[in-house]
Amino acid sequence: MKIGILGATGAVGQQMRQCLEERNINCDELRLLASARSAGKTVPFMGREVTIQETTPESFEGLDYVLGAVEADVAKEMAPHITKAGAVFIDNSSAFRLEADVPLVVPEINGEDALHHHGIISNPNCSTIITLMAIAPIHRVSKITHLVASTYQAVSGAGVNGMKELGDEVEAIRTGKPVEPKVFPAQIAYNCIPWIGSDTGNGVTTEEAKLGNEGRKILHNPDMKVSCTCVRVPVYRSHSISASLSCERKVSIAEAEEAIRKADGVKLVEEGYPMPLDTSDQDIVFAGRIRNDEAIGGLTVWCCGDQIRKGAATNAVEILEYLLSH
Amino acid sequence: MKIGILGATGAVGQQMRQCLEERNINCDELRLLASARSAGKTVPFMGREVTIQETTPESFEGLDYVLGAVEADVAKEMAPHITKAGAVFIDNSSAFRLEADVPLVVPEINGEDALHHHGIISNPNCSTIITLMAIAPIHRVSKITHLVASTYQAVSGAGVNGMKELGDEVEAIRTGKPVEPKVFPAQIAYNCIPWIGSDTGNGVTTEEAKLGNEGRKILHNPDMKVSCTCVRVPVYRSHSISASLSCERKVSIAEAEEAIRKADGVKLVEEGYPMPLDTSDQDIVFAGRIRNDEAIGGLTVWCCGDQIRKGAATNAVEILEYLLSH
Repeated sequence: MKIGILGATGAVGQQMRQCLEERNINCDELRLLASARSAGKTVPFMGREVTIQETTPESFEGLDYVLGAVEADVAKEMAPHITKAGAVFIDNSSAFRLEADVPLVVPEINGEDALHHHGIISNPNCSTIITLMAIAPIHRVSKITHLVASTYQAVSGAGVNGMKELGDEVEAIRTGKPVEPKVFPAQIAYNCIPWIGSDTGNGVTTEEAKLGNEGRKILHNPDMKVSCTCVRVPVYRSHSISASLSCERKVSIAEAEEAIRKADGVKLVEEGYPMPLDTSDQDIVFAGRIRNDEAIGGLTVWCCGDQIRKGAATNAVEILEYLLSH
Repeated sequence: MKIGILGATGAVGQQMRQCLEERNINCDELRLLASARSAGKTVPFMGREVTIQETTPESFEGLDYVLGAVEADVAKEMAPHITKAGAVFIDNSSAFRLEADVPLVVPEINGEDALHHHGIISNPNCSTIITLMAIAPIHRVSKITHLVASTYQAVSGAGVNGMKELGDEVEAIRTGKPVEPKVFPAQIAYNCIPWIGSDTGNGVTTEEAKLGNEGRKILHNPDMKVSCTCVRVPVYRSHSISASLSCERKVSIAEAEEAIRKADGVKLVEEGYPMPLDTSDQDIVFAGRIRNDEAIGGLTVWCCGDQIRKGAATNAVEILEYLLSH
């Protein structure tokens, strides 16, 4: 088996390589594709050194699977070359997520959808994955009809440069130097930025629209009504989400907790509560603080999960594992 | 006129002194009361030096108004002495907020309530004030029936020590020293802590319960259904709140924006969005990002306000001004 990683040097691409190694996925070749700038560098993988190659339309020949960790425009440009080469493209970008013939998959929730692909499978948005991992078990008890979410999103969502910017700003403030945001639209150190992505036209950001659009597709729940406020916070890796939801029938706290306890890939925190720091650099999502929500007539849930792992790389590698085992 | 500040050396007490000076409130005596530890120190006020005195039951003789910036237990202990001395107690603590004969006042919203006091007027919880300042104008268009809120609360909510702890932790991390939280239940630097206050018995924290209990009283809206998730974030001074609300009748974005534009003490941010950094150390609240909320069948609002000023000290001083002018 031959696997490629497109965008191998970014935060998600590097994590994909690490996940493949941690999960001991047996591959004859790992082809690491990046921009010309990184080409020629070598990185370790399963005891050998792998040389990073520049991405070209011909880069995908002979590959069985390509894990994509690039922006939507690059994913769109490369997808035809990947599928023409006969490889299955598991794409972390937003490029194809809402296309009717592209499965959008969180393996623990709708893994079977991945089997009906036509060469491309999309990995959902990071906040969407983490939120759904926490609430899908409740949805299996009774269909979720309404969902109000507010996010607390880590800077890793903007990649390596986002993480660097937070550190640089904290250091600039300490040393009395000017803070000059480049990655984020404002200073993120000691601040919250309630704007991620761009305007969809009605004041809702692209990031906020994803939870509804992708959540309805993943849960096979086309009528679910969703509102979301996405906020960047000065946290490095784990996203947190405060979610209020109502279901077709009233689900009790005990039922919701039991459903989460039984679910794969999510851990119910029964003493205390999940926090970004405690949940970083782990593959599972953590849910807790489940309580009655009198305003929405349902439940409130708090959840945290590592943005780079389950929010992106781990989920993509789990899609690959699902395909390999089915 | 003689004014006392009880708890004069804390973050809120110091800000009260500054607000009295900024607003040029004419007083013959400012009596600054604190613990024995601070007694004897002097601080500047309107061009003179005022000596801090140790608080005793006899401290309030001759005062007309006492602004309280102490914890609920101290407020409860001192209240009988304050009222016995004939002073009006404007108390920032949670001690009396829900008592039937104690007005709970945000002057721009229910200032008239302050006139019906029996010696004690309570200043609401900081997140409650900031949220209500943003949504009360909408409530005046059509009664709010349901409110789902998630907060992004600054460390100043835990006073001077809370602000110091964030700085100390960032420095400890930089220098490779251990982080030892004392004020907060966990490391707040680069983290979010979804727990403020203590458990009310059903998983809801005391801080979360305040928005509903105090909000219903301030808005004279006993049937409003409220759910809230309160989260501490690594921000110094301004609280932010993501609020989804529905009203008796559908209120349009344009109507909500116009109502906020016309309201006192709150500014509609029409380009961009309010952020904690931009709104710190100012007396007004900032609201923005008003959009339709299909999940709750109403509107989503994002707001920010300085926790020490409008969330506490400014509001208390404004209650005093309201009493003086009516």
